[in-house]
Amino acid sequence: MLKVELLAITPSAERLIEEAGRTCYLSFDKTGEDSDKRFIRMIIKNGHHSVLEHASATFRIIGGSRSFTHQIVRHRMASFSQQSQRYVDERDFSVVTPDSISANPAALEIFNGVMERCREAYKKLKEMDVRKEDARFVLPNAVTSEIVVTANFREWRLIIGTRTEKNAQWEIRKICGLILAELAKRAPTVFEDMK
Amino acid sequence: MLKVELLAITPSAERLIEEAGRTCYLSFDKTGEDSDKRFIRMIIKNGHHSVLEHASATFRIIGGSRSFTHQIVRHRMASFSQQSQRYVDERDFSVVTPDSISANPAALEIFNGVMERCREAYKKLKEMDVRKEDARFVLPNAVTSEIVVTANFREWRLIIGTRTEKNAQWEIRKICGLILAELAKRAPTVFEDMK
Amino acid sequence: MLKVELLAITPSAERLIEEAGRTCYLSFDKTGEDSDKRFIRMIIKNGHHSVLEHASATFRIIGGSRSFTHQIVRHRMASFSQQSQRYVDERDFSVVTPDSISANPAALEIFNGVMERCREAYKKLKEMDVRKEDARFVLPNAVTSEIVVTANFREWRLIIGTRTEKNAQWEIRKICGLILAELAKRAPTVFEDMK
Amino acid sequence: MLKVELLAITPSAERLIEEAGRTCYLSFDKTGEDSDKRFIRMIIKNGHHSVLEHASATFRIIGGSRSFTHQIVRHRMASFSQQSQRYVDERDFSVVTPDSISANPAALEIFNGVMERCREAYKKLKEMDVRKEDARFVLPNAVTSEIVVTANFREWRLIIGTRTEKNAQWEIRKICGLILAELAKRAPTVFEDMK
Repeated sequence: MLKVELLAITPSAERLIEEAGRTCYLSFDKTGEDSDKRFIRMIIKNGHHSVLEHASATFRIIGGSRSFTHQIVRHRMASFSQQSQRYVDERDFSVVTPDSISANPAALEIFNGVMERCREAYKKLKEMDVRKEDARFVLPNAVTSEIVVTANFREWRLIIGTRTEKNAQWEIRKICGLILAELAKRAPTVFEDMK
Repeated sequence: MLKVELLAITPSAERLIEEAGRTCYLSFDKTGEDSDKRFIRMIIKNGHHSVLEHASATFRIIGGSRSFTHQIVRHRMASFSQQSQRYVDERDFSVVTPDSISANPAALEIFNGVMERCREAYKKLKEMDVRKEDARFVLPNAVTSEIVVTANFREWRLIIGTRTEKNAQWEIRKICGLILAELAKRAPTVFEDMK
Repeated sequence: MLKVELLAITPSAERLIEEAGRTCYLSFDKTGEDSDKRFIRMIIKNGHHSVLEHASATFRIIGGSRSFTHQIVRHRMASFSQQSQRYVDERDFSVVTPDSISANPAALEIFNGVMERCREAYKKLKEMDVRKEDARFVLPNAVTSEIVVTANFREWRLIIGTRTEKNAQWEIRKICGLILAELAKRAPTVFEDMK
Repeated sequence: MLKVELLAITPSAERLIEEAGRTCYLSFDKTGEDSDKRFIRMIIKNGHHSVLEHASATFRIIGGSRSFTHQIVRHRMASFSQQSQRYVDERDFSVVTPDSISANPAALEIFNGVMERCREAYKKLKEMDVRKEDARFVLPNAVTSEIVVTANFREWRLIIGTRTEKNAQWEIRKICGLILAELAKRAPTVFEDMK
């Protein structure tokens, strides 16, 4: 089951963004109730997005496939710690089944069959003392891989913007949608225009 | 006066690093009292520094010169919001005086003289309605520029490592020394080997 | 005098972009006369800009001020080698005079006066054996600083796009305009939409 | 079969590095026969590696597995164009067989068996009109994925240094070894100390 869990977020993130951003103008005298929200709306409108980099959020994503992780790690300003198939024994791997397959009983039978075949092969190779880093060559893309992702708010806006477009792949869209929902609760002014 | 102020730091940063880093090995069962410290020492020793990227800290640096800021902004994985001479009126600028100059009365007189001359020129240009972004061309490197810097712990280690070397410039060495002192209090296991 | 000189550019850059980009689709069979131009127009239109990163260009910029260099070095995916005021003797520095100042004789007199005062102070400090890295604190922003900048084509598009906007500062706008003119000659399909 | 092909490299790369690097010191008068080699040796020794960023090289890597590509794309300052399993029909996929498996007939039989089973499943799913982006979930890590990688020389040094260490995975070690061999021919002074 897919699960997106917020592990950490900058405390008082929107206040921090204001505090940092007002440095550019030395306009600290304009700070007051709700001034952070006005400030953030202004910098987003003006394209002064670098100020959003001072706050960040860390998510643990459980139940994404290796297809998903291979895509997400391309984002340069983010940081990743990912379940390693070199170090983790994958005998009990879980899989992601695409909707187009689970909706079609014949396709699902083929899919489940090949998953079991991969699992057996992996087990047998392990029993023959093949190392994990080599046995994993038989593991399919569908296998899940846990990953922790930290990014600053500007980068999360870029990731979410790119990966929720209609041409993006369904799995990364779904995951980025869950991340956006969480961020929009925690830092509503920064993310409200993306929903 | 130089002042380095911690504005924000990831809460329970060392625990977060452990939580994120154990994802690579799915070794969450090894978590316990002080396990974060052992884990962090291990990854630093093994060179697995990417895990340190999940935690970050934000500093406000007041009283650094434009010479200093021009150096610090070269660090790519860090984020900056800096007092802009295009937007801030600099009539009352402060300056950084190098020790080699303040220790020498004749040099200091020359230095102070030229600072006042620059200030007068700036004021007169402003009175002639020259815009701030053009009047600033007469401001010297000694003028201070407030800056807020956010970096993750891996990047802080790299910045501090590079900028406190004996060949580094004295101002950035001093500032990075103050940052290290603060970080070593807040995340001692991550920074203890750098002191 | 401002001078922007192309030092290096990826040979057959547009062909390389096509060769690299077709890897995504294994569509090498579509390669033919002018197919690179069609391919590049398609990826720019579709927002698949990462393919443009395979080609790059290096410029030497002579006659830009330290105000300009402090801005340009903020671009993360670019590479910089800049005249160092720690290592270069600046007794014979050149300056950039903003148009708003050179157009106003009274302003120009103030400006030139302060430049000479800075130069004298720098010389005297040097004669007192103050090190270059400390004497430079009296140098104004107007002082020129030679810089060599390498960036890939995607990054040049981002730099030029941001820095030629109407709100950008006049000096960086002018320099980025000269860079764009050169790039549009050398890789016309990549840069034609930016003019 | 694994194949590493140089697609592009900065012309006169070592001269360009010298030309760019001498900007820091304005020491162009020291340029002469073989001065580039002395200059490059000096900056490598002094740790002034940013100068190496002005030159870059692009390789096409054919016959690397998806395990390999998932590792290489983590390098931030490099640029990638990779065969996409969303767009390319993979019915005729090739595979990488680890030596530890091909050396063991029983293991090889298991491995080959599961590869064929994956191929059949992929074909059948495609015949049922499952889209490529979903059918690929049954493709194993062993499947090859063509990739074009561009990096500057500093980044190639970092990639090669990290990925040829004794703890690195055998496939990425082998590929980085081939890249190093090619770079050491083309820019011998930059890469001679890494062999």
